[in-house]
Amino acid sequence: MNKINPTFSDVETAAERIAPFAEKTPVLTCSAINEMVDAKLYFKCENFQKVGAFKFRGACNAVFSLTDEQASKGVATHSSGNHAAALALSGKLRGIPVHIVMPSNAPENKKQAVEGYGGKITYCEPKVHAREVTLKKVIDKTHSIEIHPYNDKRTISGQGTVALELLQSHPDLDVIITPIGGGGLISGTCIAAKGLNPNVTIIGAEPKGADDAFLSLEKGEIVPQLNPNTIADGLLSSLGTKTFPIIYKHVSKIITVSENEIIRAMRLLWERLNIIIEPSSAVVLGALMKHPEENIGNKIGVILSGGNADLNNLPW
Amino acid sequence: MNKINPTFSDVETAAERIAPFAEKTPVLTCSAINEMVDAKLYFKCENFQKVGAFKFRGACNAVFSLTDEQASKGVATHSSGNHAAALALSGKLRGIPVHIVMPSNAPENKKQAVEGYGGKITYCEPKVHAREVTLKKVIDKTHSIEIHPYNDKRTISGQGTVALELLQSHPDLDVIITPIGGGGLISGTCIAAKGLNPNVTIIGAEPKGADDAFLSLEKGEIVPQLNPNTIADGLLSSLGTKTFPIIYKHVSKIITVSENEIIRAMRLLWERLNIIIEPSSAVVLGALMKHPEENIGNKIGVILSGGNADLNNLPW
Repeated sequence: MNKINPTFSDVETAAERIAPFAEKTPVLTCSAINEMVDAKLYFKCENFQKVGAFKFRGACNAVFSLTDEQASKGVATHSSGNHAAALALSGKLRGIPVHIVMPSNAPENKKQAVEGYGGKITYCEPKVHAREVTLKKVIDKTHSIEIHPYNDKRTISGQGTVALELLQSHPDLDVIITPIGGGGLISGTCIAAKGLNPNVTIIGAEPKGADDAFLSLEKGEIVPQLNPNTIADGLLSSLGTKTFPIIYKHVSKIITVSENEIIRAMRLLWERLNIIIEPSSAVVLGALMKHPEENIGNKIGVILSGGNADLNNLPW
Repeated sequence: MNKINPTFSDVETAAERIAPFAEKTPVLTCSAINEMVDAKLYFKCENFQKVGAFKFRGACNAVFSLTDEQASKGVATHSSGNHAAALALSGKLRGIPVHIVMPSNAPENKKQAVEGYGGKITYCEPKVHAREVTLKKVIDKTHSIEIHPYNDKRTISGQGTVALELLQSHPDLDVIITPIGGGGLISGTCIAAKGLNPNVTIIGAEPKGADDAFLSLEKGEIVPQLNPNTIADGLLSSLGTKTFPIIYKHVSKIITVSENEIIRAMRLLWERLNIIIEPSSAVVLGALMKHPEENIGNKIGVILSGGNADLNNLPW
């Protein structure tokens, strides 16, 4: 029987499982940004991952970890973001049905991405409760298997492959920093990084306007995110029961970042690295720029989570 | 004595010479774009090169190929674009003076880039003749060595390292396509690619509004570019006496692309690859999208030349 919490071995298995489908994303560096923060930064570019975000790793690992019998009825989730597209593509690759519950006001491009991969969308009222009720109905009807965007061992193990790859290509990192939304990426990062090298420091970066992880670590229990308000729309979720304990145990610090700091860091990454990243990805550099005095001499792995920015609506 | 034309061995030497300084740029793929053009495209991302453009390779090779005595008086060029920044950084790395002649109306960010690397700018009237006269004065005064942006064996050999790297990582390419301005990149590509594999087809892509290379290949002699008019501001130059013969001998075809086709391809690369490329780089994808029926089944290396786009002035 599987243990409840993902282990380093689960991350290694996930890496093998998704290898035929996922990109090994490049790591970029920028001497001008290094000078600004007085550290050596290694940007792991998940904006170049399939569907433009690390979410593909977790969804792909979950979908391909199912038995044929389990998979035959398809998979389901509720999401208005990158996880929806990631699950739709993963299901397409396995040739199984994918059911996505989306709020009726979800962005047009996210709907199109899901439909483009053959996902079946069920719309609901744009409220958390309605999403959960609607998802339950879809699952009752289709007998599909729920793949949660972050509170799922299979998802977390898949997200852990980002840090696994990063530390395999750059074994001497002192620190890894990731954004925190529901905590799937950072908890996978903890499992992978601590498994390879217990001395790696893990830091989280979070918008001030959605600082539930910061508050949860202070309080020692999950503090739900009630009214998030930030441009970083991938980081609105509360921590989950599976991600919180891992984060509480392994993450050294969470740095919160203002909206202006996020936008400034986003523009800097566009201009200096010549890459397109979404606001949620900029939070990590915003955090490092806020506290350059703490970074001196460190080699820092910086996980840029995704690149699905709206080119028609730039924040500057 | 050196032969006049660069050889494959010159490109190999250049690769060794610039290795401590230049990035080995990543190669990205995109299944959605592959479907559109019915071919497998491998994007060599020189927008991630130092100074944001392949030009660093040629400038760096030229600067580090000088003897200490030659280098001591510094280097000089006239350029309002990426070559200026590339030469300034290369000179800084070698610790020698760099003199750049720039038209007085050069973009502010280009001036800042040169000055940021410690280059000394001499301004002149924004006319070709004024640039040449002013450069001659600067060289007479400083005894610095001219490093031409493309009509120079050392520059061409350095630019050839893009294709060398690309074919070393992807040896089974059938075709390589590059943009054409003065012809430094594509002539270096010819030397490198044909040296590794004579069967690789080399194709050039050029804006319709600056189609001197297309006309030169038709006529069999250099047709100067008189009044270029294109958003692709890296591709305004005429072919040179050293680049034309190499291109004439080795390039199979030059495809010309309209402004709308360039802008459409640029946006597609931003949206689908999540990378920032300048208009001059989009010309190659514009060319491939124009003639998808010719690409069937081919593996095509696509050189994206640079990423110095103006985020405040996007063409859509």
